[in-house]
Amino acid sequence: MPGYSISQVDTMKLCVVMVGLPARGKSLIARKIVRYLSWLSITAKSFNVGEYRRGYQSHPTAEFFDDENLESLKIRKQALKLALDDLIDWFNNSNGMVGVLDGTSMTREKRESIYNILKTNQIQPLFLESFCNDQETIMHNILDVKMTSPDYINDESKSDDNKIDSEMKINIKDPEFIINDFLKRISYFEKSYEPLDQQKDSDKSFIKLINVAQQIIINRIETYLQSRIVYFVMNLHIKPRTIWLSRHGESMYNLEGKIGGDAGLSPRGLKYAEKLPELVRQSAGYRDLTVWISTLKRTAETSQHLPYKKLQWKALDELDAGVCDGMTYEEIENKFPEDFKARDDNKYEYRYRGGESYRDVVIRLEPIIMELERQENILIVTHQAVLRCIYAYFMNVPQEESPWMSIPLHTLIKLEPKAYGTTVTRIKANIPAVSTYKEKGTSQLGEDLTDTSNKSKNIIISAKEELFNGTR
Amino acid sequence: MPGYSISQVDTMKLCVVMVGLPARGKSLIARKIVRYLSWLSITAKSFNVGEYRRGYQSHPTAEFFDDENLESLKIRKQALKLALDDLIDWFNNSNGMVGVLDGTSMTREKRESIYNILKTNQIQPLFLESFCNDQETIMHNILDVKMTSPDYINDESKSDDNKIDSEMKINIKDPEFIINDFLKRISYFEKSYEPLDQQKDSDKSFIKLINVAQQIIINRIETYLQSRIVYFVMNLHIKPRTIWLSRHGESMYNLEGKIGGDAGLSPRGLKYAEKLPELVRQSAGYRDLTVWISTLKRTAETSQHLPYKKLQWKALDELDAGVCDGMTYEEIENKFPEDFKARDDNKYEYRYRGGESYRDVVIRLEPIIMELERQENILIVTHQAVLRCIYAYFMNVPQEESPWMSIPLHTLIKLEPKAYGTTVTRIKANIPAVSTYKEKGTSQLGEDLTDTSNKSKNIIISAKEELFNGTR
Repeated sequence: MPGYSISQVDTMKLCVVMVGLPARGKSLIARKIVRYLSWLSITAKSFNVGEYRRGYQSHPTAEFFDDENLESLKIRKQALKLALDDLIDWFNNSNGMVGVLDGTSMTREKRESIYNILKTNQIQPLFLESFCNDQETIMHNILDVKMTSPDYINDESKSDDNKIDSEMKINIKDPEFIINDFLKRISYFEKSYEPLDQQKDSDKSFIKLINVAQQIIINRIETYLQSRIVYFVMNLHIKPRTIWLSRHGESMYNLEGKIGGDAGLSPRGLKYAEKLPELVRQSAGYRDLTVWISTLKRTAETSQHLPYKKLQWKALDELDAGVCDGMTYEEIENKFPEDFKARDDNKYEYRYRGGESYRDVVIRLEPIIMELERQENILIVTHQAVLRCIYAYFMNVPQEESPWMSIPLHTLIKLEPKAYGTTVTRIKANIPAVSTYKEKGTSQLGEDLTDTSNKSKNIIISAKEELFNGTR
Repeated sequence: MPGYSISQVDTMKLCVVMVGLPARGKSLIARKIVRYLSWLSITAKSFNVGEYRRGYQSHPTAEFFDDENLESLKIRKQALKLALDDLIDWFNNSNGMVGVLDGTSMTREKRESIYNILKTNQIQPLFLESFCNDQETIMHNILDVKMTSPDYINDESKSDDNKIDSEMKINIKDPEFIINDFLKRISYFEKSYEPLDQQKDSDKSFIKLINVAQQIIINRIETYLQSRIVYFVMNLHIKPRTIWLSRHGESMYNLEGKIGGDAGLSPRGLKYAEKLPELVRQSAGYRDLTVWISTLKRTAETSQHLPYKKLQWKALDELDAGVCDGMTYEEIENKFPEDFKARDDNKYEYRYRGGESYRDVVIRLEPIIMELERQENILIVTHQAVLRCIYAYFMNVPQEESPWMSIPLHTLIKLEPKAYGTTVTRIKANIPAVSTYKEKGTSQLGEDLTDTSNKSKNIIISAKEELFNGTR
């Protein structure tokens, strides 16, 4: 039986049409919306008009964007058409629910034409403008994002939004050239730009973000999905920040191979709790941060020595194993063999009798994610399944994979959200712990995965590490 | 251990300052905000400037509101001062968290002065304007609300926002007089009205609702509490609608006096399921409605014959009794005598070992309430504790009382939210069922409360019925 999901409330197809000048963070917002909705099991995809244009003209200079350049105008129109065609195809053939048209859609005429095409295809248009006249933010966007834009990089490989490209290609052109060329490009766009207008566009559904989210105008937001998207973008900010994740230290239940319960920490778990403040300090320096824990004893014990403000959330409690709470996997396999198999077959959807599925956990974590988007530096001490779900949000891990990710005990994970993805660092405490990782098809827990070969210093593992054990 | 509550995220005091002409629904919005926050355990209170003014002038005619009438201007200033004084007192002496100053605050000068007073008292001001130029809505507000305003009624008893006054006093003056006088009053206010302005007021935190929620301008929303209030008012609508609530039919567990579990219906429970469509039809007529159920068998079985669209929500599942799931109250008393007593002492806060408290249920129901505010006609088939929490929201029942309300089986409850409160009708199906009501201090369930004395027709009980059994 399915739990509630946002997608069941509305059945209409929705297209978010981005509006605004270049370097206003449109693509970043588009990607965040897609990531958020996908995490909530809403099929979402962004269609970047610039990428379609690059099929014709891969390294344009500013002049390409002059509306008086008729040849290039034709190319840009064609790119928009291709993007829209693909978007509509995707709605019709891939059960698309929320598409994002990530272009500039800067004139009323162009928006009207997009509006009509979408309406003809039974797709509900929602315009989302990022309006920004704060020069500092604009320059920040140019420096942060555009310096690495495919428009200026001599590399045919397309950027993959979901992954970190740690070996980002160095621009072939010099930074000063790029900045000036980009500012010139913007000035061509400004000539024809018609921002969304409270009166003139009052018949359309739209969200207008003014200088990130300092002022927001919302017009004719009618459906649940629209209102969730409004609430989400309302809470976004662009201040740099870091999120740390940690499982509780090894618990007495972990030692016995039991799941659930409310056991205290093992002696090794207590050692991890003692070491955690040092690990955090090494990673965070003297930044102030807030610690979020669950209501279960093992997270309170793990965080007991951390010298920061603490907040307890029931929503951070471990996945509820229902009737299997307190059992070992072996006991579950013996007592409920069919359930055991059903869970292996679809771990994301499987709901323990009287308990929860991963999907259920995602739904109850939604307010946590929303609040995380609003906050700056946060350290979350929680449980394996919950941590997998939070991690999946930031790293865009597909649903079917997230329940199989290996998140070992006694390891601090540092997430740094950036414009093009999230950088991950794993810091091992070098305190041995049992493995709580169960491979598909067995009831045995894996080998101790904690690397204890070098006890003198913490091991920092790069973002490129393999997150999955065999079963991927 | 406390669960998460919204109140833990922000520690700052917040004052929502209502802005706008008369008959723009300001008091209704103010009351809804207070009710929503109170339900979430956030101490909130509204201070209606009009009520303070009535201390000096109880039945003013329109001329009283002419700014050229210096005597009355003085009275109105004094009323505002008294309201603000009380509000600040309340913040300081009653641990107030969100106060609402429910006046007109129509000029920039007046708002500036309120802003400064609040800031001096370490209270964060959030202006909330209801701007409306839709004549139909305004006239609807005048007819719906102002006809029964204490300004026009010759009755000294103050209106009690939380209760329905079914014997509403008849106005001593005739309707036509009231409408004209009120329109004249508005015209006096219009002379000095300065709406919130995107540029001029851009340094203030504000929400401006234009024609209910057709267009919304949000400025400098920075804290979590502010953003929750924005999201809440964004979802309000004023269309008339009805909500029906029903517990599942009597279950096999009910027969055995067991709590929790996932049992099917008893033969009498199945009878209720058969009768439910007829009860709903009699109450709803041919209106279209949507049925929301939990993920547990007994709500699915209860709703099986209802000819409407159905939606399953995990958030509607019964309060999780943790280790006590499947036990009778007697067994709980024997096995966990201390817990049993602790629950009786503070039923709202008591969290079952490995399970939930009423407070936890309220937090997971918050998205349901938000969605209910957005929707029109909904029938919810759910469980005793969940139903108590939903009912408490609509009827403004205090936390310490809600877990003790009697909500018998085999009874359909109809809620009609109105401007000044919610009308309740209880429709009994006249199908006998056990009582599941446990009185404080005993482990015995009460007598069968279902009235079966008249089996030929449904009994409709008025809103005045006593909702509490002895223990109130």
